[in-house]
Amino acid sequence: MDTHRALRKGFPEVIFGAGKTPAQVVRIAASLLAHEPRILVTRITAEHASALRKKFKPAVYHEQARCVTIDKKPLPARGGLVAVICAGTSDLPVAEEAAVTAEIMGNRVERIADVGVSGLHRLLGRLDIIQSANVIIVVAGMEGALPSVVAGLVSKPVIAVPTSIGYGASFGGLAALLGMLNSCGSGVTVVNIDNGFGAGYAASQINALTDKSR
Amino acid sequence: MDTHRALRKGFPEVIFGAGKTPAQVVRIAASLLAHEPRILVTRITAEHASALRKKFKPAVYHEQARCVTIDKKPLPARGGLVAVICAGTSDLPVAEEAAVTAEIMGNRVERIADVGVSGLHRLLGRLDIIQSANVIIVVAGMEGALPSVVAGLVSKPVIAVPTSIGYGASFGGLAALLGMLNSCGSGVTVVNIDNGFGAGYAASQINALTDKSR
Amino acid sequence: MDTHRALRKGFPEVIFGAGKTPAQVVRIAASLLAHEPRILVTRITAEHASALRKKFKPAVYHEQARCVTIDKKPLPARGGLVAVICAGTSDLPVAEEAAVTAEIMGNRVERIADVGVSGLHRLLGRLDIIQSANVIIVVAGMEGALPSVVAGLVSKPVIAVPTSIGYGASFGGLAALLGMLNSCGSGVTVVNIDNGFGAGYAASQINALTDKSR
Amino acid sequence: MDTHRALRKGFPEVIFGAGKTPAQVVRIAASLLAHEPRILVTRITAEHASALRKKFKPAVYHEQARCVTIDKKPLPARGGLVAVICAGTSDLPVAEEAAVTAEIMGNRVERIADVGVSGLHRLLGRLDIIQSANVIIVVAGMEGALPSVVAGLVSKPVIAVPTSIGYGASFGGLAALLGMLNSCGSGVTVVNIDNGFGAGYAASQINALTDKSR
Amino acid sequence: MDTHRALRKGFPEVIFGAGKTPAQVVRIAASLLAHEPRILVTRITAEHASALRKKFKPAVYHEQARCVTIDKKPLPARGGLVAVICAGTSDLPVAEEAAVTAEIMGNRVERIADVGVSGLHRLLGRLDIIQSANVIIVVAGMEGALPSVVAGLVSKPVIAVPTSIGYGASFGGLAALLGMLNSCGSGVTVVNIDNGFGAGYAASQINALTDKSR
Amino acid sequence: MDTHRALRKGFPEVIFGAGKTPAQVVRIAASLLAHEPRILVTRITAEHASALRKKFKPAVYHEQARCVTIDKKPLPARGGLVAVICAGTSDLPVAEEAAVTAEIMGNRVERIADVGVSGLHRLLGRLDIIQSANVIIVVAGMEGALPSVVAGLVSKPVIAVPTSIGYGASFGGLAALLGMLNSCGSGVTVVNIDNGFGAGYAASQINALTDKSR
Amino acid sequence: MDTHRALRKGFPEVIFGAGKTPAQVVRIAASLLAHEPRILVTRITAEHASALRKKFKPAVYHEQARCVTIDKKPLPARGGLVAVICAGTSDLPVAEEAAVTAEIMGNRVERIADVGVSGLHRLLGRLDIIQSANVIIVVAGMEGALPSVVAGLVSKPVIAVPTSIGYGASFGGLAALLGMLNSCGSGVTVVNIDNGFGAGYAASQINALTDKSR
Amino acid sequence: MDTHRALRKGFPEVIFGAGKTPAQVVRIAASLLAHEPRILVTRITAEHASALRKKFKPAVYHEQARCVTIDKKPLPARGGLVAVICAGTSDLPVAEEAAVTAEIMGNRVERIADVGVSGLHRLLGRLDIIQSANVIIVVAGMEGALPSVVAGLVSKPVIAVPTSIGYGASFGGLAALLGMLNSCGSGVTVVNIDNGFGAGYAASQINALTDKSR
Repeated sequence: MDTHRALRKGFPEVIFGAGKTPAQVVRIAASLLAHEPRILVTRITAEHASALRKKFKPAVYHEQARCVTIDKKPLPARGGLVAVICAGTSDLPVAEEAAVTAEIMGNRVERIADVGVSGLHRLLGRLDIIQSANVIIVVAGMEGALPSVVAGLVSKPVIAVPTSIGYGASFGGLAALLGMLNSCGSGVTVVNIDNGFGAGYAASQINALTDKSR
Repeated sequence: MDTHRALRKGFPEVIFGAGKTPAQVVRIAASLLAHEPRILVTRITAEHASALRKKFKPAVYHEQARCVTIDKKPLPARGGLVAVICAGTSDLPVAEEAAVTAEIMGNRVERIADVGVSGLHRLLGRLDIIQSANVIIVVAGMEGALPSVVAGLVSKPVIAVPTSIGYGASFGGLAALLGMLNSCGSGVTVVNIDNGFGAGYAASQINALTDKSR
Repeated sequence: MDTHRALRKGFPEVIFGAGKTPAQVVRIAASLLAHEPRILVTRITAEHASALRKKFKPAVYHEQARCVTIDKKPLPARGGLVAVICAGTSDLPVAEEAAVTAEIMGNRVERIADVGVSGLHRLLGRLDIIQSANVIIVVAGMEGALPSVVAGLVSKPVIAVPTSIGYGASFGGLAALLGMLNSCGSGVTVVNIDNGFGAGYAASQINALTDKSR
Repeated sequence: MDTHRALRKGFPEVIFGAGKTPAQVVRIAASLLAHEPRILVTRITAEHASALRKKFKPAVYHEQARCVTIDKKPLPARGGLVAVICAGTSDLPVAEEAAVTAEIMGNRVERIADVGVSGLHRLLGRLDIIQSANVIIVVAGMEGALPSVVAGLVSKPVIAVPTSIGYGASFGGLAALLGMLNSCGSGVTVVNIDNGFGAGYAASQINALTDKSR
Repeated sequence: MDTHRALRKGFPEVIFGAGKTPAQVVRIAASLLAHEPRILVTRITAEHASALRKKFKPAVYHEQARCVTIDKKPLPARGGLVAVICAGTSDLPVAEEAAVTAEIMGNRVERIADVGVSGLHRLLGRLDIIQSANVIIVVAGMEGALPSVVAGLVSKPVIAVPTSIGYGASFGGLAALLGMLNSCGSGVTVVNIDNGFGAGYAASQINALTDKSR
Repeated sequence: MDTHRALRKGFPEVIFGAGKTPAQVVRIAASLLAHEPRILVTRITAEHASALRKKFKPAVYHEQARCVTIDKKPLPARGGLVAVICAGTSDLPVAEEAAVTAEIMGNRVERIADVGVSGLHRLLGRLDIIQSANVIIVVAGMEGALPSVVAGLVSKPVIAVPTSIGYGASFGGLAALLGMLNSCGSGVTVVNIDNGFGAGYAASQINALTDKSR
Repeated sequence: MDTHRALRKGFPEVIFGAGKTPAQVVRIAASLLAHEPRILVTRITAEHASALRKKFKPAVYHEQARCVTIDKKPLPARGGLVAVICAGTSDLPVAEEAAVTAEIMGNRVERIADVGVSGLHRLLGRLDIIQSANVIIVVAGMEGALPSVVAGLVSKPVIAVPTSIGYGASFGGLAALLGMLNSCGSGVTVVNIDNGFGAGYAASQINALTDKSR
Repeated sequence: MDTHRALRKGFPEVIFGAGKTPAQVVRIAASLLAHEPRILVTRITAEHASALRKKFKPAVYHEQARCVTIDKKPLPARGGLVAVICAGTSDLPVAEEAAVTAEIMGNRVERIADVGVSGLHRLLGRLDIIQSANVIIVVAGMEGALPSVVAGLVSKPVIAVPTSIGYGASFGGLAALLGMLNSCGSGVTVVNIDNGFGAGYAASQINALTDKSR
């Protein structure tokens, strides 16, 4: 049963910041950094970021992603590419959380924004870079149709992230979630609403399979 | 208050067949045909169709649409085109119900099938005919993403029809319905799950606005 | 694929203001106005309106509609009429959003308020003007019954807009939405809860079909 | 605590037949009739009815209502009227269950059918009889709008009965139920989906308040 | 169609205060009082009450009910009694809204509180007064079981009012609402969650049937 | 980790029969009986029971409970009593499943039926036996109010079992489930809809705490 | 019927603090303490605690549990152990509410935290103490899987408490609640979301069965 | 846009058999096999299988998986392993659908059954083989807890498949779906309820990333 730490070697420790005070987050971070080289703090505000940067030198605040990373010994980026696609500016925080997560886990990330399904010309204009990735994370709110369209254009794994963006019958992201679960695009898998971290983490696990050095 | 019949001039009377016996449907049809030139019977089986055709000469059975039409005095088709688009063979019965409804109300209808969002090349290959229509009905189950994509490619009214096709988290068409209500495509309006009749009726009301002879 | 701009000629660009700061909205507006003659900003507060008016001369604040329009070259109104009907004062902001959207897209709009289904005498008193419209937008919260009643009184397309007005088992507009989707009135189509913009946009697309000059 | 039987004097005993075999229903009926003058058996099929009529002479089968009544000593009908209104033929079984229940409890009942909200002229044509009733039961499926319209036309108690009639987003009567609970008509109260019995029972309790002989 | 005012004679005009400013409420009240003898303002705060009392002399603030009544010519109370029962102190605002509504409509009201189903001895201790009423309003949150128990103890109409009191799986009153709709107590009818006004109004309509002077 | 078998000593092995053929159930039963003294087969039909009884001599078919027990070495019943209460005859199969489960696990069980909340006199008439039990299982469909009432009358653990009995807004037992989860009766715990087995199992675990011989 | 007080002897009176002002809570507490030796006040803030401690000397504020206890005559702890297990720090307030409730009712409580299902080594490391308890309370948010795992490791009653911890598709604890109700672990019973009090109360009722002195 | 076929090289064509007649399935299969080397037919009965095997020589019927494969030129299995884990016998059809899908796409598959979370000893006994896989598919109904536990024991991608197995509050697999979406196990992604095909397809896309020969 003691394979736990061995298995997780190279993975960051993660602190879910929502509902914790800056002081609590700093205390947990200090305790983890005593024996871990890198941590990722998600769902925080500028206030948390400020407290973490005051305490820990290498702390980096990713404002749009609402994350702080502290990496005492950054991993070299592995070969394959992770693409993070989203449609609107409202989805950017979730997309950035996914991107920052994949980056701290040692992946190169390409961000592709403003490519919604009602403006196909923009999406098709970025097809080359999308098709060159090993894994594609697709972030979308409202009707959550983008992953189906993308899955029809690539042969690589697609991870869909519904967001809580929308109003009325979006029911806090439920419409996008159901849309993605019912995707007609073969091979699409889905994570929880707004769970950019989970998508970035899964993408990294997948991309790591191609990593000979690991 | 007595404007009702005047308003409805030229519109068919409609019998919703589900839950009625063939005998009941024949009796209602006979009663309506006593003073109406045309009726549309929806959601019926071959058994109903057979009973209607035995009784009424001009009755036509539209098998895939699960409809019978009886039209003693067919309307001349008006100028503008109604396009009916759907992705999969499973959605065809609902699409055909929409098409048959629009046709009996005096519209020319173009059917465009097998154009799902995960096979964009097929959809884009039919773009010319889609863009030439006055109204576009888009029928889709599963994630219901097709109307958003279509709405981005045209400037005409798009009526979305969710279908109950799917399983698991499609929840009998709820996923497609929510997807369509949250469509990022401007100007998309939605009817009830599987309501091909309603979509065809609304499309005809819209197309009739361009009808000088009316 | 490059038909996008051509298709959208004459349509306004739209900024969904909710969740954006006044500064963000002003920045996006400036960028759009560099190459567009008219924009519509929805779901804003007085603070956003003030920032927009300070920056852009022709900006008009529609307080009840919670919108700002900036129109450097107003379109001439086309012939047909769009009617916007609602029952209670609480539904007015959504109804006004629909009306302002239809107006900036070049439509004449008639507003008809205070005509709920439990006071039929008021609705029937306005029947003439309602029956003279090309398209009728019906805005209603609570049980969402008004579109069914109106659809029985006209032969033109009816677009139903559920609102989130109500409490308890209205579930944020879900009751009204379901009521409208199940409308017994033939030809009623529905947009998302509180989506006045979508209804106005669809109404304009429909009314434009009668526009010879276009 | 022993006021139970006294309170219920004059009320029928009721057997809910759904899920019971004809033999079980006959056995329960026999046991109740040993000390009760009248019983009402609801939600039964022709097979149950046949078994009951074979065993009990005064048994009456109300086919459309799916009920059998056995009344050894019919109550004289009291003065006030109970009106039972419904829109479509599909709602008739529930409306009849309400009517039969009210009748066996000693009320005069007026049935008013085919008066949906999208055909107001028919409803308004029956206004006199509706306004003359002491209590009005309104049965409706789909969007459940009829009770709101009726409540605006009378000053008496209105009991709304949603039915499971509909498809798609009617969700087995949920849409009608929510519509009725959110009715803008003051004084509307609601019973469970398809609960014609409950509505008839409540209507009788209300009408009995006007009964001097009781 | 002009029977509206006649029908409503004696009924108060009602202003739903939630979402309106004190100034708006005062303005609407002034306009109604120009030709109505009495109004009821519901869902207001102390601030609204203060503004109304400053403007209108006979205004009475019912703090727990969150209502103001202005009655220039109070109706004499009719004979029959309306009982308003609730279980906990949290349900009191809704119960009071029902009571105040019934009172301004000319009914004598008896309030019975602190009689939940898990303390039957207290409920049974008040049985005499409950059984003496013409109509019983039962207000309950959480599991909404009280109406079923009360309905088993009386032979008069019971109106159940679910409240949004509770947490977790009460889902804002949905649990209580469903419980009441499925009540095993014959003759229970239900109004919307927290709709004390609707219950009081319906109770008054019912009690008025016994009113010879009306 | 190998404490599993030790922990479960004395517990029956259980086969959930729904969805399995008689042949499959017999095969699994044979395999379990090779090294277990007793098994319980739930959710079966008469056909399964017949197959089991043909194969295994001591098999007992509990028809109402839809269970078969095979007990090669019955446990002596322990001291404390388990009471199983239900309101209507429709709830009996679930109540019997609970009772049979508790019995095969070595408990004395008292069944108390026909004691619904709208007939309190019957419930109060059985209070002595209910209060003498160590654990009380309360089975109820519809509004699920019975556990709250019972919990107010005893000081022992109450396990509530919602049943799928009901129609319309009972939503397959959801109404009863929510009612029980929101019970105002302190100390009520709940199992899944129709899960008589789970309730009987938990009751036995609780009653076993009083068992000195174990 | 007057067995109520006798039955409840030794049980604390409970005040649900949420939605009550500090002054209201103090007033109710004073009234209860006039004839009760101990009370438990749940769901309060520091402000309520401060007001209670100023007024009542023996008041103890349990900050993490958000409770105050006032116990004029503490009960001696009985023999058996109640274990309270939870996975994450976010679940601690609910777990503490359960623990404080069990303690004031005279039980020894062992708290076991940080033992989630994705870190089995930590859970298995605490197996001895868990298996030594008479009753195990398991508190979990998110997917609510912990009770199933624990139930497989013990033979004693397990009470599962879902918490509202999570985001997106956790739907305020609904995911955890459904997970627990569908637990594959035999004998798991469930209380409402966040209902630590109910779990502690039920655990005490169960543990009391082993109490010879009572 | 014509990259579609190139992208899909090596992938099977898939026919979703549910709702299609044997004749329809045979016809579609014949049409696909005219230009494709391999097809997979899912959700079929023995009748479909028999029709396919009569027509196509190399057709193989996978009874438990409810699939037929027709592979004219089987792909050589690539190096990495796909593990398919499930808890109960009821989940086997979905697990087999996943396994058959992964196999026809050229993957070695290891099946691991009977390892539910309430019997950890069995799961831990298979840890070696699970940890040796490149991708792990975890199939579970009821509370859907197994993926979280597995994700804590491996560092590879975990794809969770909820099944519709269960009753009552499992709501056709919704409980398992929500549990998996809220998994505390980092890196878990989810597919639709019962979607074994989608999981097998995604697993193959992931495993293919390690395939040098491709």
